[in-house]
Amino acid sequence: MNRQKIRELGVKIGALPTGEKNCITDVRSVLVGHSTIKEKLAGTDYACTGVTAILPHEGNIFQQKVIANSYTINGFGKTTGLVQVEELGQLESPIMLTNTFSVPAVAEGTLHYLLRENSDIGDTTGTVNIVVGECNDSYLNSIRQLNVTKEHAIQAIRNASQDRVEEGAVGGGTGMVCFGFKGGIGSSSRIVSSNEKCYTLGCLVQANFGKKEEFPYLRYGLKNLENNSTASKQPPGSIIIVIATDAPLDARQLKRIAKRASVGLSRVGSNIHNGSGDIVIAFSNAQTIPHNSSDVLETLTFLRDDSECMNLLFQAAAEATEEAILNALTKATTTKGRNGRKVEQLPYNFK
Amino acid sequence: MNRQKIRELGVKIGALPTGEKNCITDVRSVLVGHSTIKEKLAGTDYACTGVTAILPHEGNIFQQKVIANSYTINGFGKTTGLVQVEELGQLESPIMLTNTFSVPAVAEGTLHYLLRENSDIGDTTGTVNIVVGECNDSYLNSIRQLNVTKEHAIQAIRNASQDRVEEGAVGGGTGMVCFGFKGGIGSSSRIVSSNEKCYTLGCLVQANFGKKEEFPYLRYGLKNLENNSTASKQPPGSIIIVIATDAPLDARQLKRIAKRASVGLSRVGSNIHNGSGDIVIAFSNAQTIPHNSSDVLETLTFLRDDSECMNLLFQAAAEATEEAILNALTKATTTKGRNGRKVEQLPYNFK
Amino acid sequence: MNRQKIRELGVKIGALPTGEKNCITDVRSVLVGHSTIKEKLAGTDYACTGVTAILPHEGNIFQQKVIANSYTINGFGKTTGLVQVEELGQLESPIMLTNTFSVPAVAEGTLHYLLRENSDIGDTTGTVNIVVGECNDSYLNSIRQLNVTKEHAIQAIRNASQDRVEEGAVGGGTGMVCFGFKGGIGSSSRIVSSNEKCYTLGCLVQANFGKKEEFPYLRYGLKNLENNSTASKQPPGSIIIVIATDAPLDARQLKRIAKRASVGLSRVGSNIHNGSGDIVIAFSNAQTIPHNSSDVLETLTFLRDDSECMNLLFQAAAEATEEAILNALTKATTTKGRNGRKVEQLPYNFK
Amino acid sequence: MNRQKIRELGVKIGALPTGEKNCITDVRSVLVGHSTIKEKLAGTDYACTGVTAILPHEGNIFQQKVIANSYTINGFGKTTGLVQVEELGQLESPIMLTNTFSVPAVAEGTLHYLLRENSDIGDTTGTVNIVVGECNDSYLNSIRQLNVTKEHAIQAIRNASQDRVEEGAVGGGTGMVCFGFKGGIGSSSRIVSSNEKCYTLGCLVQANFGKKEEFPYLRYGLKNLENNSTASKQPPGSIIIVIATDAPLDARQLKRIAKRASVGLSRVGSNIHNGSGDIVIAFSNAQTIPHNSSDVLETLTFLRDDSECMNLLFQAAAEATEEAILNALTKATTTKGRNGRKVEQLPYNFK
Repeated sequence: MNRQKIRELGVKIGALPTGEKNCITDVRSVLVGHSTIKEKLAGTDYACTGVTAILPHEGNIFQQKVIANSYTINGFGKTTGLVQVEELGQLESPIMLTNTFSVPAVAEGTLHYLLRENSDIGDTTGTVNIVVGECNDSYLNSIRQLNVTKEHAIQAIRNASQDRVEEGAVGGGTGMVCFGFKGGIGSSSRIVSSNEKCYTLGCLVQANFGKKEEFPYLRYGLKNLENNSTASKQPPGSIIIVIATDAPLDARQLKRIAKRASVGLSRVGSNIHNGSGDIVIAFSNAQTIPHNSSDVLETLTFLRDDSECMNLLFQAAAEATEEAILNALTKATTTKGRNGRKVEQLPYNFK
Repeated sequence: MNRQKIRELGVKIGALPTGEKNCITDVRSVLVGHSTIKEKLAGTDYACTGVTAILPHEGNIFQQKVIANSYTINGFGKTTGLVQVEELGQLESPIMLTNTFSVPAVAEGTLHYLLRENSDIGDTTGTVNIVVGECNDSYLNSIRQLNVTKEHAIQAIRNASQDRVEEGAVGGGTGMVCFGFKGGIGSSSRIVSSNEKCYTLGCLVQANFGKKEEFPYLRYGLKNLENNSTASKQPPGSIIIVIATDAPLDARQLKRIAKRASVGLSRVGSNIHNGSGDIVIAFSNAQTIPHNSSDVLETLTFLRDDSECMNLLFQAAAEATEEAILNALTKATTTKGRNGRKVEQLPYNFK
Repeated sequence: MNRQKIRELGVKIGALPTGEKNCITDVRSVLVGHSTIKEKLAGTDYACTGVTAILPHEGNIFQQKVIANSYTINGFGKTTGLVQVEELGQLESPIMLTNTFSVPAVAEGTLHYLLRENSDIGDTTGTVNIVVGECNDSYLNSIRQLNVTKEHAIQAIRNASQDRVEEGAVGGGTGMVCFGFKGGIGSSSRIVSSNEKCYTLGCLVQANFGKKEEFPYLRYGLKNLENNSTASKQPPGSIIIVIATDAPLDARQLKRIAKRASVGLSRVGSNIHNGSGDIVIAFSNAQTIPHNSSDVLETLTFLRDDSECMNLLFQAAAEATEEAILNALTKATTTKGRNGRKVEQLPYNFK
Repeated sequence: MNRQKIRELGVKIGALPTGEKNCITDVRSVLVGHSTIKEKLAGTDYACTGVTAILPHEGNIFQQKVIANSYTINGFGKTTGLVQVEELGQLESPIMLTNTFSVPAVAEGTLHYLLRENSDIGDTTGTVNIVVGECNDSYLNSIRQLNVTKEHAIQAIRNASQDRVEEGAVGGGTGMVCFGFKGGIGSSSRIVSSNEKCYTLGCLVQANFGKKEEFPYLRYGLKNLENNSTASKQPPGSIIIVIATDAPLDARQLKRIAKRASVGLSRVGSNIHNGSGDIVIAFSNAQTIPHNSSDVLETLTFLRDDSECMNLLFQAAAEATEEAILNALTKATTTKGRNGRKVEQLPYNFK
C-alpha cells in the first residue's frame, strides 16, 4: 500500500534536477490541501471524490494577488474563473480542483471562505474571482448525488500546507482514472539555474484521462500492460494542470509556460481526445500585486524572453508535467466505486 | 409606474424593422423567464436581486443542442461555461443571468433541473455544461448575504415563456444600475430580409454599467440629465448580452455576430472601462444538434459570409443591443436597496 | 483646397483635451512619413496609392523595441507581422500602411531599410519582424499594376518627422474611400491627466470603409448628405488603426487599449461589415526593450489596471479613433482614379 | 545519397496505417512542388534556400476555396495570411514555404500567379489572401542576400504534382537544420477508418528546429548521437506544419486538428523554445466553397465531434507530424552553406 513516486522507482523523466520534495510545494510559499470523500451510499452508489486546494502563497491571496494565466489545451470542460484571469493576468483566489458537478459547491465554499477573510469584498470593494478546475469522476463516483459540499472546499483550504503533497487517490483525485488505471493527484518540480539565477517550477495535476493502449509503457521501462485488467467504458477523461513558479514572469509569459505543459501531456501518451477538458493554470508568486494601492504605477521585474532561463523554464514545465502525471499513477492505489466497479492501481511491472 | 420601451416613447434606434414583440422572444421558439427577489433583511440589508433564464428553444436543450459562441468585450467578470462553448460551438443548457456571487447557486440549481430532466447525464453519458452570466448588483443588493438559492434558478426556468419579455428591475436585473439610473433587463429585436430570406435576431441584456456623464442623452432626444440625482460611488459595472437568431449560422459566424453587439454598446456611451465584465453569448436555433446520433456526419446549412443577409445581421446585432440597453433604462422603475440607497428611474425628459 | 480638421470646423469629439498638434506625433518621439503615388497610366489605368510609415521612436527600433499588441476587429485583411507581435508583445519595425497588393513590396522595402541599418540581422543575430497594414484601394487605384515599389516604402520611412501629420489623400491613404467620400489618413490625440500623472495617446488611421447611408451626419452637425454624389459599388472597405502612447503599459494592457479603438469606429457609423480588415496596432514607447542585453531581468513600470488613468486612456482611444476617422474625411480632397472614376471630398455642409 | 523515409528504415511511428505514398499527396487532389536554390555566391556567401508550394487541390483555389484554419504553437515567426484564415475559415491560395526574408518575394510571386489566373481579382471582385510560412535558414543560407525571387515562387507552384513528395534538403527546406543535423521538408500520412467511413490525413513539414541533445534517439532505436558532429550556434529554429485531409471538417474542427500537430512535435523532442515560429495550417478539401455564388446558403456536411473518426484524426495528426519530421531528417543529405559551414545528415546508426 505504500506507493512511490516514479523517480523513487528508478525512472528519471527529463534532464533537469527536481526540487527537494519533487512537488509543487517546492515553490516557496505554495500550499496544497485535500479533502477526500470515500463513502458507500445507498444501493450501488458510492461517494468517491473530493477537493484539492492550491494556494499561491500563505498570505491573503485576494489582498495580495499573483500574476497568472491559463491555457486551454482542449476546452470540453467546465473550469470556472478563467475569463478574468485572461483579462487581468491575475489570480486572487486559491485554485480548487474537484469533480465536474461539484464546481458550484466548491466555488460557493471558496466564496464563503474568502468573504469571511475579507469583509470588504462585495461591500466596500468589488467582488472576487474564484478558479475551480474539474474532471469527470463518474466512473467510480456517483456524481449525480453531488457528494461534495461547500464545507469540503473550506476544509481543503484549511488543510493546505507546504509539506510534500499527498498524491494519488486523494482530494480532487479520489475518483479519477488515468490510462485505465487509478489516477488522481500527482506532483513534481524542477530547478532551473542559469546566469546566477535559480528558480523553481512546480506542477500539480488532477489526472483523469487516457486509454490503456495509449500509455507508452516502454518509454518508462514497464512491461506490456495489456494483460492487466483496467477500467473499461469510462467516460472521456480530462486533466487539470497547475504550474507554479517563483521565476518573475508576466501574464503573457505565463501563458507561454502553460502551453509547454501540453508537451509533457503529449509525451505521456495523450492525443488530447475530443471529450477532454485539458486546462492549464500557471502562476508566478515572485511578486504580488496589492488589491488596493495608493500608487498609480507598479514597478515589476521580469525575465527576458530570450534568456536561457526562459527556455529552461519551458523545459521544466514539460518535464514536471510528464512526471506529475506519472506520479499520479504510481502513487494511486486500487479504488472501489459505484456499481461495483474497481479501478486497479498501475502495477510496478518494471523490466 | 407603467414604464415603456424607448420606441414607444418615440425614439427609433437604427434602420431595420423590429419583430412583433421587439423582444428576444421574437426569435421563434426562444423563451425567457425571471425569478425576482426583493425583500428587506435585518438591519440595513436588502435582498434586491434575482435570476433570468433564456432558453434557446422549448425542447430538451441538452438532447438537442444549439450552435453558439461567445465574445468577451472585457473580461473582468465571472461568467461560467464559456470554455466549452468556445471549444465545441454548442450550447446545451439555458443561459442564466444573476448577480456575481450567485453564480454557484444558479449553476447548481440549473444542474438540478437538468439532472432531473436527463437521467443519462453523469450516469450513462457525459456531463453537462452550464452557462451563467453575472453582474455585480452590490450597490442595491446585500450581495454578501447570497440571497439567491438554487430554487430561484429552477423557478426562473419554469417561468420561461415566449411572451413579450418583462423588462427593467426584474429577474437578474432587479438590482442593476445603468448610467447612474435604474437598469436591469432590456430586450429588442430586428427583422432582416434579403434575397427572399427573412431572419429574426433578438437581444436581451442585463445592463449594469456606465456613469451618468457617459450617457449620450442628446442622441436620444433627451434633455440634459445632469440635474437628476443618480447613484454615486457604485462599483464598476458590467453588461451581459445575449443574442438569439433563427438565421442558420455556424459557431465562427456567431462569434462575429457577438462581436457586433459591442457596436451597440459603444454607441450607447460605454468606453468599456477596466472593471467591467462585458460578455456576449450568441446562439442560432435554426438547426439543432442531437446529443446522441447514430450518424457520424451532420449535414447543415449556413449563410454565406458574403451574403447581404450577413451584413444585415451584423447591423441587427448592433441596433438590437443598443435598443435593448435603452429599454432596460426606460422600463426600469425607481428601486430601493441596502444601506438606505435608492436608484432613480431614467426620467422621460424628452425635448 | 485648404481642408481642415473637424475640430477646426467647430465639431468637438468627446470630452478629453487634445495634444498640441492633435496628431499621433503629439506622443513624444513618434514620427510619421508618407510616400504618395498619383500618376495616370496607360488606358484608363491610374496609380493612386502610396505608403505611410509610423515610427515608434526616432532611434533604432530593432535595437530598442517598444511594447506593443494588436487587436483584430474583423480579420478580412492581409496585415502582416501580427503573429510575432502577439507572442512577444513587442514591435521592432516601423508600422507601414499601404494598399492590399503592395504589402509584399512594402515589406521588402522595409526589410532593405532595416538590413542596411542593422548589419547583425540575419547574420550574427536573428531575423526581424515587419508590420504592414493594408486596405484595398482598387476603386481608384489600378491595384493589379502593383504600383508601389520597395523604394516607396524606404522613402516613406525617410520622410518621417514629428511634425503635424499630413492627412487626407496622402501616403497609404491616397486612394482610400470612406462612407462614399474621399477618405485616407487621419490623426488625432488626447491628453490624459490624473493623480499627478499626464500621458498622451495618439491615433492614426488609414480609413477606407463605410457606406454613405451609415455615416451619422447628424451626430456631427452636418446636413443630410444624401444628395451628394458619392462612390458607388466600391469593394468592401477596411480601416487600419494605429494607437501610440507614452503611458507605461504592458502588452496585455495594450491589447485592451487596442480594443477600445473599436468604440470610436462604432460611433462613427461602422457596423464592421463582413468584408472589412479592421485591425488595430497599439504601442507604448514609455520604455524600450533592448534587442541584446547582458541582463537576464528587465525592470519595468506599468500603470495599474484599476487606476483612473487606465479608464481615461480607454476613453482617449475611443475618442481619438473617432476623431482621426473624421479628420481623414474632412482633410481629404476630391480625387480622380482609374476607369474615369472620381471620389468627392466630404462637403462642409454644417447646419 | 539515396536516403530513405524512417519507415523504410524499419521504424514505425504510431499505430495507424499510412497512405500509399506516406505523403501529404495521399490526400486526394493535394499537390506539392519545390523550387530549390543552391549556388555559391561571392566570397563566403552561399544561396542555400528555396520555395515549397502546397496546393489544396488541382483546380483554381481562389475560385474554389477550401475550409482551413491555423494554430500558433509559438509565434516568434513571420508567417503571413493567417489573420484572414482565422476570420473566414477559408484558404484561397497555395500555401507557400520559404525562408524568413523571402516571405515578401514569395508572396509577390504567388500574387502574380493568382492575378494571371484570375482576371477578376482586384478589378471586379475583391483581393486575395496569400499564406506564406517561413523558417530562418541563415545558418547555411546567406539570407541577407534575398536569394529567392518571385519567379522561384511561381516555379514551385508550376512544379506541383500529386507524386510522392520530394523530401529533405529541397524547396523551402534546402537550408534547414533540425536537431543539429540536416533538416528540411518531410511528409507522412495516415488512413483513418471507422463506421464505414475512411479518410486520409497528410502532413508536410518544413523542419528547422531543435538542439541535438533534445532528440530522443532511443525512442527511434538509434545509438547515442553525441559523438556525431553537428551544426553549432545556429539561430533558434522553427517548424511550419501543414495538415491536409479529405475528412469533412469545419474551421473550428480544423483548429482542433492543427493543435494535435503539437503532440507529434512534442514527442519528437521539441520543448517549443522561445525563438521558434511553430505554426500549423490545416485544411480540408472534402468540400469547396465557391468564391461567387448565386446562393445565399451553403449546405455542408461535417464529422460529428464525438465520432470515433474525430479522435482517430486527432491521433493521425499527432502521428503524421512526428513521422514527417523524422522523414525530413532521414531523407535530408549533408549540405554545405555560407561561411564554409556544413551540416551533416542524420546517420543511420540504428542499434
